[in-house]
Amino acid sequence: MRQSQLFGKTLRGDPKDEVSANAKLLERGGFVYKTMAGVYDYLPLGVRVIEKIKNIIREEMNAIGGQEVYMTALQPKERWERTGRWKELGAEIMYQFKDRSGRDLGIASTHEESLTEIALRSISSYKDFPLYVYQIQSKFRDELRAKSGLLRGREFLMKDLYSFHTDEDDLSKFYTKTIDTAYKKVFKRCGISVVVAEASGGVFTKEYTHEYQALSEAGEDLIFYCEKCGFAQNKEISSLKDGDKCPKCKGIVKASKSIEVGNIFRLGTKYSKPLGLLYADAKGEKKPVVMGSYGIGVSRLMGTVAEIHNDGRGLLWPETVAPFKVHLIVLDSAKKAPPSKARRASPVAASGEKLYKNLLAKGVEVLYDDREEKSAGEKFADADLIGIPWRVVVSEKTLASKGVEIKRRSEKEAKIISEKELLKEIRL
Amino acid sequence: MRQSQLFGKTLRGDPKDEVSANAKLLERGGFVYKTMAGVYDYLPLGVRVIEKIKNIIREEMNAIGGQEVYMTALQPKERWERTGRWKELGAEIMYQFKDRSGRDLGIASTHEESLTEIALRSISSYKDFPLYVYQIQSKFRDELRAKSGLLRGREFLMKDLYSFHTDEDDLSKFYTKTIDTAYKKVFKRCGISVVVAEASGGVFTKEYTHEYQALSEAGEDLIFYCEKCGFAQNKEISSLKDGDKCPKCKGIVKASKSIEVGNIFRLGTKYSKPLGLLYADAKGEKKPVVMGSYGIGVSRLMGTVAEIHNDGRGLLWPETVAPFKVHLIVLDSAKKAPPSKARRASPVAASGEKLYKNLLAKGVEVLYDDREEKSAGEKFADADLIGIPWRVVVSEKTLASKGVEIKRRSEKEAKIISEKELLKEIRL
Repeated sequence: MRQSQLFGKTLRGDPKDEVSANAKLLERGGFVYKTMAGVYDYLPLGVRVIEKIKNIIREEMNAIGGQEVYMTALQPKERWERTGRWKELGAEIMYQFKDRSGRDLGIASTHEESLTEIALRSISSYKDFPLYVYQIQSKFRDELRAKSGLLRGREFLMKDLYSFHTDEDDLSKFYTKTIDTAYKKVFKRCGISVVVAEASGGVFTKEYTHEYQALSEAGEDLIFYCEKCGFAQNKEISSLKDGDKCPKCKGIVKASKSIEVGNIFRLGTKYSKPLGLLYADAKGEKKPVVMGSYGIGVSRLMGTVAEIHNDGRGLLWPETVAPFKVHLIVLDSAKKAPPSKARRASPVAASGEKLYKNLLAKGVEVLYDDREEKSAGEKFADADLIGIPWRVVVSEKTLASKGVEIKRRSEKEAKIISEKELLKEIRL
Repeated sequence: MRQSQLFGKTLRGDPKDEVSANAKLLERGGFVYKTMAGVYDYLPLGVRVIEKIKNIIREEMNAIGGQEVYMTALQPKERWERTGRWKELGAEIMYQFKDRSGRDLGIASTHEESLTEIALRSISSYKDFPLYVYQIQSKFRDELRAKSGLLRGREFLMKDLYSFHTDEDDLSKFYTKTIDTAYKKVFKRCGISVVVAEASGGVFTKEYTHEYQALSEAGEDLIFYCEKCGFAQNKEISSLKDGDKCPKCKGIVKASKSIEVGNIFRLGTKYSKPLGLLYADAKGEKKPVVMGSYGIGVSRLMGTVAEIHNDGRGLLWPETVAPFKVHLIVLDSAKKAPPSKARRASPVAASGEKLYKNLLAKGVEVLYDDREEKSAGEKFADADLIGIPWRVVVSEKTLASKGVEIKRRSEKEAKIISEKELLKEIRL
């Protein structure tokens, strides 16, 4: 992608009304646009990051047998009255209104009722198990306070997987092993370390749940965790204090703010019973289906990566979720000489074009800073802000040494190497 | 994918409350689930078709320089008041309501206001053109009547591309050539023939627009078109009748019902002026940006393909958008013999498993009907209903002849060929 044509320019200063680091950096870098507090549009750089995160999640969900569906945002009141949640969620987070014909509608904050109803068509016998179904799409919450950028959205992207089981044992196996393993892979691949904390289920369930928490001062949660054995609890349910002995291993408990990037719930028969999702066991006896649900905040994960991987100058994307792998910058002192076509033909510009095309031909994702009106200082500042893992510079200096300058975003020192060495280096 | 594990079973009879062929077939085949009239969930088979259509569109939009964004569904009233459309769309199609804090919100039926506002950050000079930005996502319309299945949704998937230009001439070139060519490619790749009809812009614009119409009795539009020269008009703006002389070439005008699968609008300065989207020309003079917008109904296109490509027994997906390329069916007369593991080890079942794995290893997308409790008749009926292009059968008969049975969904005759020939045949 040529940066001269990229939709979404970098901003010089911090956007007004933003207090969180993730929102400041993502807006300044041209990844997102703020329509309202907690409601962000994704610009091309942001779409690229989101798509990479989605693909990592999709791969891990498919690997454990997940099947993808896409459910509706518009929800009829009747469906939610059967579980008692029309009133419950309506009072707290669900946008509800009447359409022109006077019908009560909601916008989905969550989809347990939807999927349980749909599953009535797929589940009738014990032979229909196990079944794992997931969705990656926007959800909506009428949050009174939304000041944490992408960490707490009124409109946000979620992955939710739902599992269907014949009994609690089967759910337990899936819950404690399969999902836990898949979730740890997802967060690791996105460059995020997590602690698994016991927590309350909020408005969604009365049972204990588990949260995948990324330690960060920007987090809205407070957890107590033991570095030694991994035991952790959300403050909401914990009687621990900072410095206490770990109730499991007698290590020392620490307190930390944290961001909940994922959560897993045992739903049991909470939704299957009121919605009539039953199956016939081997003896023909009808029993309610046992369910679990497993969320990952996709846009929140993008915000978390931004929150954790940044320095004073901008973002530092892990390669797995970076919008591009290489930020190729051409510094052409002939740039002031009109007309444009003559400039393009300058040795430095020609060399930049050639390297850009060579990299594309090799399948490398490149953002090519071909902007003629920007100074070297402006280009370097933008590269630091956008945070692509590899910065490659073509200039009169590099041309004279028959090489290119390469620098990792995470390191200070640049070095000049040959184009052949460059290809080796970035394929590490 | 093993059909025994597929989420979304086929239905025996037509779903109640559906009158359109596309909805009946897509629901019966397990592609979609109806949450409300005009509001459908996509099950795994449906998600596969939608993703293929999206990818075709994405490829063609990227090929003409389009950059993908993702905009918000939630919309603040203030943005739409600047163009006068809060009231205008609110009276006709836009869901509007107040959140818990009393703020007026809408759910986006369209995104011209959003993108024009976002473009303020990217456009300031004549050097910033041309710029083509697109989105593929759900939109919402408070339709009073929604009886055409996926052809008219209250919640539906749309692709919209928006173009930004310095003047009408540049818009014209893009509008009449680039977009028209790309659109024709998209519909052709999806297996749909279209007529380009002049039309009115409805609530969106007062200027003439162009619609890509697929001829079908299920359509809600009526068009007059000339087969000879391609001239066509929507009845809304036409003074023609069936049998009239074509005003362009003197050929004969025919009338037909049709489905509007795409439309292109010259927006001119309708949105740039009220929202202040100006650019400085080469002399430094400020001028309003000239815009165009170009839609394709993604879910409507899926409905249109279903509406056009079906017979009495079910769907006939074009290979480009089919959920799978091959429907592999194993017919095992040993299936009644318990236990299950012994059955799997029967020669027919083992042969089916082997072929399934061989096809997957070669990158062929296969739905594998490994269901043990279904008869041959039920399996064939499901295959016809689901409509995957190639049906391949493994049975005692095919095993005896050391081959497999292959049949195109669109043809009547099956033939027995070797596995090697099978691979050649389906790669045509």
